[in-house]
Amino acid sequence: MITCLAGGVGAARFLTGLLRVVDASEVTAIVNTGDDLTLHGLRICPDLDTVTYTLAGAINPELGWGLAGETWSAMDALARYETVAPAGSSAGLTWFRLGDRDLATHLYRTRRLDEGATATQVAAEIAQAWGLGLRMLPMSDDPIETRVTIVEAGREVEVGFQEYFVGRRHEVEVRAVRWAGITAARPGPDVVAAITGADLVVICPSNPIVSIGPIRAVPGVEAALAARRSTTVAVSPIVAGAAIKGPADRMMASLGHESSVVGVARLYAGVATTLVVDDADAASEAAVEHEGVRCVTAPTVMHGPAEAEALAKTVLGLV
Amino acid sequence: MITCLAGGVGAARFLTGLLRVVDASEVTAIVNTGDDLTLHGLRICPDLDTVTYTLAGAINPELGWGLAGETWSAMDALARYETVAPAGSSAGLTWFRLGDRDLATHLYRTRRLDEGATATQVAAEIAQAWGLGLRMLPMSDDPIETRVTIVEAGREVEVGFQEYFVGRRHEVEVRAVRWAGITAARPGPDVVAAITGADLVVICPSNPIVSIGPIRAVPGVEAALAARRSTTVAVSPIVAGAAIKGPADRMMASLGHESSVVGVARLYAGVATTLVVDDADAASEAAVEHEGVRCVTAPTVMHGPAEAEALAKTVLGLV
Repeated sequence: MITCLAGGVGAARFLTGLLRVVDASEVTAIVNTGDDLTLHGLRICPDLDTVTYTLAGAINPELGWGLAGETWSAMDALARYETVAPAGSSAGLTWFRLGDRDLATHLYRTRRLDEGATATQVAAEIAQAWGLGLRMLPMSDDPIETRVTIVEAGREVEVGFQEYFVGRRHEVEVRAVRWAGITAARPGPDVVAAITGADLVVICPSNPIVSIGPIRAVPGVEAALAARRSTTVAVSPIVAGAAIKGPADRMMASLGHESSVVGVARLYAGVATTLVVDDADAASEAAVEHEGVRCVTAPTVMHGPAEAEALAKTVLGLV
Repeated sequence: MITCLAGGVGAARFLTGLLRVVDASEVTAIVNTGDDLTLHGLRICPDLDTVTYTLAGAINPELGWGLAGETWSAMDALARYETVAPAGSSAGLTWFRLGDRDLATHLYRTRRLDEGATATQVAAEIAQAWGLGLRMLPMSDDPIETRVTIVEAGREVEVGFQEYFVGRRHEVEVRAVRWAGITAARPGPDVVAAITGADLVVICPSNPIVSIGPIRAVPGVEAALAARRSTTVAVSPIVAGAAIKGPADRMMASLGHESSVVGVARLYAGVATTLVVDDADAASEAAVEHEGVRCVTAPTVMHGPAEAEALAKTVLGLV
């Protein structure tokens, strides 16, 4: 049994490769829900959906999120109402684009949650609808919201993750990150068992701060990870000092971490014994191992499924 | 000032004609909300939307509801989830088709209501978004649900209006109609004043039972209508014994009313002094007037805006 801690795009690609190598019934993905937001009254889970759509072969290849062959009629029509919404209203906002087909996912999820289903139950239903064989576990059924303190016009302001990530295109400095609701949150019902009982835990190449960070922050998860770190492998999302995608490098630097595989090793030393870094970072091997983490070099940049499969095989070969 | 009691398609057509003759700022439409439903967590107001879209010239000409040039990606995508929804769940249901552009209206309305706006405020915002100059008043800001007792497989069963109208395509016998919530409901804040203060009240050619009926059933409305019936004109939705559109004729008959202009006259005698009937019903003039209602014959079937305009002129000429 293999359990993967997953954020969005990088994790989705890794999982695509993994499912080409092992049977899906052996795989559990514990997915970050700190990025989730409610917009237009709809519950939107970007990382769960990115993983689902990617594994279904339905991800929008140009955007890297949302569905392929998407149409945008609803959002275009909503722009008409954006002009009449009173000041302070969040109705009619179109800055977070939801495709028409994608809307169906949010409509279904929102309705099921309103009916009393848990996030875990809904994620399983959505995975089933897309014919995915793996187990998809939201990190928690409780509301946890990643809040980001950014610098805007010279002043610090705290915003929701998507307001930072999509609204500001992550082009602003991050001063702090916290998880609202985390103290009262519990791990999803199968999360700790999936970590504890796995033969291998993989920390996917996702943002260590805002994708893997919230999963680890759920009370009980860090301890479960630490207790079985001997067969946990992390894949560095930082290659030659830069993030493959997204703001992980800038965010690590502005939060006082080294934006490098060494910085990643420091963040993961308590929960993983092995860090897979890209061949481009071979020179950092000793520095990584100095952090108490075995360093393995391999091609980690996944342009397509073949590279993802090769990376998965590398990871599987490590334990 | 002209105040019109309005259901869906017939009322929307009449209003189109009226707005070609008088300035929109002089017109108030009090619209039935008994047909409203919540589906996928979205608040849907079919009559308000049909009037809005029609007056905006944006109604779907083939369907008679929804928007022209509509796409159906969200509903098509929702069908995937319909297959995994647990028994008893209303998530993923696709029997009530919502177009992608139409969804924007429901998303906006739902969010605004969640923010605490009243139905009256939201209807005004939506009318403004579409550039309508008339005043659109939902009959009430309170929840009122038209419930229909139908005969199915030989047994009486009560269903929501849209379950009867769309779900069963109104092809079943109606035994009873009631308005859940009506006792506690109040008219919308401007509704009674719009009736009392109007120079002319028009009861549009809508279903007397389930379109005009709920408006009259809102506590206070019937009395306001009765008190000023001397300048109230109704247009019969029944022509030569049949409804122009929809089940009004069958519904009237199965509820014990005569499916004719005479039956309409009986239903409206307490609130209108004049009934406009189609030329095809000229022979019923004496029978209508026997009910205590002046009978005026005119072409009432509105195939297009020119005929609607002519009908509006006829009505305006009566007071």
